[in-house]
Amino acid sequence: MQLNNTHRIQTDQLDVPPRLLLGPGPSNAHPRVLQALSMRQVGHLDPKFIELMNENQELLRYAWQTDNQFTIPVSGTGSAAMEASLANTVEPGDVVLVGVNGYFGLRLVDMAGRYGGDVRQIEKPWGEVFSLDDLRAGLEQHRPAILALVHAETSTGARQPLEGVADLCREFNCLLLIDTVTSLGGVPLFLDEWGVDIAYSGSQKCLSCPPGIAPLTLGPRAVEKLNNRQTPVANWYLDMSLLSKYWGNERTYHHTAPINMNYALREALRLVAEEGLEARWARHQANAELFWEGLAEMGIECHVPHEYRLPSLTTVRVPDGVDAKAVAGRLLREYNIEIAGGFGPLAGQIWRVGLMGFNSRPENVMLLLAALKEVLP
Amino acid sequence: MQLNNTHRIQTDQLDVPPRLLLGPGPSNAHPRVLQALSMRQVGHLDPKFIELMNENQELLRYAWQTDNQFTIPVSGTGSAAMEASLANTVEPGDVVLVGVNGYFGLRLVDMAGRYGGDVRQIEKPWGEVFSLDDLRAGLEQHRPAILALVHAETSTGARQPLEGVADLCREFNCLLLIDTVTSLGGVPLFLDEWGVDIAYSGSQKCLSCPPGIAPLTLGPRAVEKLNNRQTPVANWYLDMSLLSKYWGNERTYHHTAPINMNYALREALRLVAEEGLEARWARHQANAELFWEGLAEMGIECHVPHEYRLPSLTTVRVPDGVDAKAVAGRLLREYNIEIAGGFGPLAGQIWRVGLMGFNSRPENVMLLLAALKEVLP
Repeated sequence: MQLNNTHRIQTDQLDVPPRLLLGPGPSNAHPRVLQALSMRQVGHLDPKFIELMNENQELLRYAWQTDNQFTIPVSGTGSAAMEASLANTVEPGDVVLVGVNGYFGLRLVDMAGRYGGDVRQIEKPWGEVFSLDDLRAGLEQHRPAILALVHAETSTGARQPLEGVADLCREFNCLLLIDTVTSLGGVPLFLDEWGVDIAYSGSQKCLSCPPGIAPLTLGPRAVEKLNNRQTPVANWYLDMSLLSKYWGNERTYHHTAPINMNYALREALRLVAEEGLEARWARHQANAELFWEGLAEMGIECHVPHEYRLPSLTTVRVPDGVDAKAVAGRLLREYNIEIAGGFGPLAGQIWRVGLMGFNSRPENVMLLLAALKEVLP
Repeated sequence: MQLNNTHRIQTDQLDVPPRLLLGPGPSNAHPRVLQALSMRQVGHLDPKFIELMNENQELLRYAWQTDNQFTIPVSGTGSAAMEASLANTVEPGDVVLVGVNGYFGLRLVDMAGRYGGDVRQIEKPWGEVFSLDDLRAGLEQHRPAILALVHAETSTGARQPLEGVADLCREFNCLLLIDTVTSLGGVPLFLDEWGVDIAYSGSQKCLSCPPGIAPLTLGPRAVEKLNNRQTPVANWYLDMSLLSKYWGNERTYHHTAPINMNYALREALRLVAEEGLEARWARHQANAELFWEGLAEMGIECHVPHEYRLPSLTTVRVPDGVDAKAVAGRLLREYNIEIAGGFGPLAGQIWRVGLMGFNSRPENVMLLLAALKEVLP
């Protein structure tokens, strides 16, 4: 048979510009994480890898402040863990109440619907958060099996307070599902204290690991719901009733785990444990405050009130008459700094600036402020 | 709030034994691939990353010998690409005929059922393949919308011939779906010549890239079926109607691509293009033959007849009275060589030996044969 060489293109050795990733993610991986990533492989059932799996589970529990036995990295990006959280706990007909105050709330609505959920929404404008009264009203009206909230809305920069929410959920006998993609490792999170039943995250935000592996945790009530399902999980790859046999004592083959991404995650989580959560949360807060002060001095406002503002992701109001896209473009082209714009109802109105994990450093704040002064008209 | 430090374990810097991975996968990544993997990141919408996405698509087309426009790496392991192939093309009620002659056929059955497929099976003992007559009989009886076959059965070592199958599929007006996880980059594959409509693969076998990214290709007939679906794809993460907007000209955000895994895949595919498919296929065949000859000299048999034997994955019959598990254990402990056993109906009866990608080298064959001589009773 004759070979088709049309697509046999000549390409150069990989090279990429030295970007400083101050957008909504990915953020730059820590150099130690990149080193761990390139370690030679072992097999996915190797005793050494199983040891590493246990370590990743333990270190994730620390980062999330949970004792949940079922705490694992999912073999995909944050979106896969998000889908896993719903695919496993939502059964056809379950009422799922989603707090929608940004893009990721909308995505939860989309995903929960695909798994047969009877999805209801409570809404707030993008950038605002839900009060306990809002949530009580929603729970009273909809009586859901699951309440889903986004702790850190990457599309708006708002931090949803979670204190007291679980008490409401217990009162209404529903599970609490939380998106912590942009908070894990950078923003205070007390999963067990706050009574969260289901949570997921990404690796490429405050954990400073490349994207491609994503934490998921299920508390005892969520595991019980999974075990008592009337219908099989409608997703093989993310079926935690199968995957739990690989992550549990049985170590049964399900799929080949992404070995090197697990190496990287381990190093990222080691860095969290070394620094300690208090210090890490304080660092994220301090560098964010520095940025916010710098913006204020330039007369630029933040979209979210200080009280609900995420330290990991700031939404900056674009000054009147400024072309948001042109500014972001110049930062990238002239200074190798990536920030992002807004989308949905915030398109053109905000920039999104991440100061996450390894990137949450005063020198990055200083540089970004200086560069903004250069490129703003 | 008081921090829970129970799970703040002390761990050492990552270190793993220098394993030679001669099992069914993962195989060792090429050193150049590991180097590329650890390159600093750019954003997933960065112009440089979009250039790299295009290159990966082109190089995948070469490796698969296809002009399919829709050819992308899925952000998960081979199992995710497998699920994507079905989730997008199977609609509830579609008859899906699966050729089951090993574990991965069974998994196709499981997955297709989760997407509402009316799944039918034709069966052969593990290690055998389907003839055109077998397939014609199956198509005549079941009149499926999709015929799914495993080109390279990793559980049995058998290579399913595909010449002439597409003509049958056209005659019965059905799509042809092929598992190429253990063949892409190591075993002759002519997707377009063979009229394959849907195929998927993994990165960690003959491509010598770590697991965590997985090729998927849809031909024009499969894309048409996707575009004409009556029901939405019941899986958000793997919904190619959404993902095609990120991989197409629109570059619309869907999920954050696994940046570094894409770097690694690019380097793996560059290595394929540099070596050339003919040379690469010939190398895999030659090293496999060397191994088979060595086995024959030791009086050890292969499970699959020479004609249908995969060069990438050999199933070795365990000699009478030998404890398969003990032998594999000694190879790992004493010589850092990983091979795997059989499972299902072949449990205890075979070893599975992979000579894939970077690992398909005469010195590895020599070493394994010598080590086997040492540990066999």
